[in-house]
Amino acid sequence: MNLTLLVVGSVALDSVETPFGKADHVIGGSATFFSASASHLARVRVVGVVGDDYPMSRLEPLVRLGVDFAGLETADGPSFRWRGRYRHDLNVAETLETHLGVFSNFHPKIPEQFRDSRFVFLGNIDPRLQLDVLDQVREPALVACDTMNFWIESRRPELLSLLERVDAITLNDGEARQLTEQFNLVKAAKWIMARGPKLVIIKKGEHGAFMFTPESVFFAPAYPIENVFDPTGAGDAFAGGFMGYLAHTGDLSDDGLRSAVIYGSVMGSFAVEKFSVDRLLEIEPRDIDRRVGEFHRLVSFEAEMLG
Amino acid sequence: MNLTLLVVGSVALDSVETPFGKADHVIGGSATFFSASASHLARVRVVGVVGDDYPMSRLEPLVRLGVDFAGLETADGPSFRWRGRYRHDLNVAETLETHLGVFSNFHPKIPEQFRDSRFVFLGNIDPRLQLDVLDQVREPALVACDTMNFWIESRRPELLSLLERVDAITLNDGEARQLTEQFNLVKAAKWIMARGPKLVIIKKGEHGAFMFTPESVFFAPAYPIENVFDPTGAGDAFAGGFMGYLAHTGDLSDDGLRSAVIYGSVMGSFAVEKFSVDRLLEIEPRDIDRRVGEFHRLVSFEAEMLG
Repeated sequence: MNLTLLVVGSVALDSVETPFGKADHVIGGSATFFSASASHLARVRVVGVVGDDYPMSRLEPLVRLGVDFAGLETADGPSFRWRGRYRHDLNVAETLETHLGVFSNFHPKIPEQFRDSRFVFLGNIDPRLQLDVLDQVREPALVACDTMNFWIESRRPELLSLLERVDAITLNDGEARQLTEQFNLVKAAKWIMARGPKLVIIKKGEHGAFMFTPESVFFAPAYPIENVFDPTGAGDAFAGGFMGYLAHTGDLSDDGLRSAVIYGSVMGSFAVEKFSVDRLLEIEPRDIDRRVGEFHRLVSFEAEMLG
Repeated sequence: MNLTLLVVGSVALDSVETPFGKADHVIGGSATFFSASASHLARVRVVGVVGDDYPMSRLEPLVRLGVDFAGLETADGPSFRWRGRYRHDLNVAETLETHLGVFSNFHPKIPEQFRDSRFVFLGNIDPRLQLDVLDQVREPALVACDTMNFWIESRRPELLSLLERVDAITLNDGEARQLTEQFNLVKAAKWIMARGPKLVIIKKGEHGAFMFTPESVFFAPAYPIENVFDPTGAGDAFAGGFMGYLAHTGDLSDDGLRSAVIYGSVMGSFAVEKFSVDRLLEIEPRDIDRRVGEFHRLVSFEAEMLG
């Protein structure tokens, strides 16, 4: 099918230090990781903002993968920059510096030709802006949003309004607990589903991801990678794989959603193998297929029944 | 098949406090949880020691499930007692008191009629005693051991000698990292396999369990339980389900081992639903079969390939 997929989020410059090396001013941001991932599966449209200092040529590999940047505005001022460090526990990023730059005045404007997008991913931005985006799109088949601790704390009423209008939400386990004040993730998911989304994806980093729907629970492990290099962007690559697969197939059945979570996990597992989007840009369909097969083997079993 | 399964470990009295209630002086210990779990699948033989204060009648439900306590010695003095607390993060036990009592002089003596046991589980005791047990059994089909941080620190040489003589080891992620000084679990498993065991099971509590063999990696999630009541003994119940299934089927193929890990996860998921072994004692084959089916549904997917 290959339906259109709109993502609204950050396009940034990251500087990252891990136990294995460092990278300075490489391309990053939620929309960048999302589209580097999803572009292997669907036609991706990006809405975001960069400063006049952004190295636009570094986005060219994404354009070659079919990403449409017609909604990427260039504003006067510096681009969003993030500097972070990971120690041996690669699950936890330590933020050293965040400079929002032009991103602090971001007001997403969806170009006319993007308004018919069938799948919409609202990256982690102010819930008021996420709501604005929803007013600018026409009849999407599925809308998913991401969020973070900062918005859960500072924009709770707006976030709850947003939940009423989205089909799906992706968030990590800590955020799910913070939003719902439920420690147990099954209870947290039920709390969220009672407020709107029929699909709750709780990401647990290296511990995998749960997908809850009113009818079913699905779990995908994170693929056990021997050499995790840089975890930055894994969650956005996951979201890109998930939404990209849905846009690729148009299949919103329980089986289709389960497969989409696996594609999310697969793309997340590639994202961590190199700095920035480097690994996501070099993979080919056969690499993706091979890892999907590896995920299948990782969890498959046939148990004899006792009864 | 239903082959014989020997477990050597602690038989204790636990006092536990959770956010949902408390239980005083209930039966616990690694051999107790192990056998309450494994007895649903195989003929279990217990070697351990209790003090002269132990409420032996509380073991009767286990005897009715076929557990043979001919190797449970009664010594003069107090039984092993543990008191612990869990806060909202049920993944972490806070130990308030440990009184080893007669357990501190435990020297496992394997009764003559137990020495032909085909499957042997060396619960978490001093590696020197685990080695002693191995000198007392004849040609088991599979020997697995457990261990803990205390032995990794204080009995490292003996533990490394033990690794050369066992087929399998179960340990949690923190212990695996401590033993191997490798943060990455794939690397940790390879480190252990290079020292003897061809089967390494790394338990991650609420995050599931990995099984590594030289040829394959398998992952089983922990079943998402809405009401986790008391996590005490989940790891031992896991080991009991794993070893019990192997003894039940005698199947040591990769498929057989995968199914055994699922049975381990199933039994662990029951263990946490009530205090002590209460839930493990009340379940029936149909409850086990139903949950095996739920595990299957939890991870199953059919993904369309791209290529």
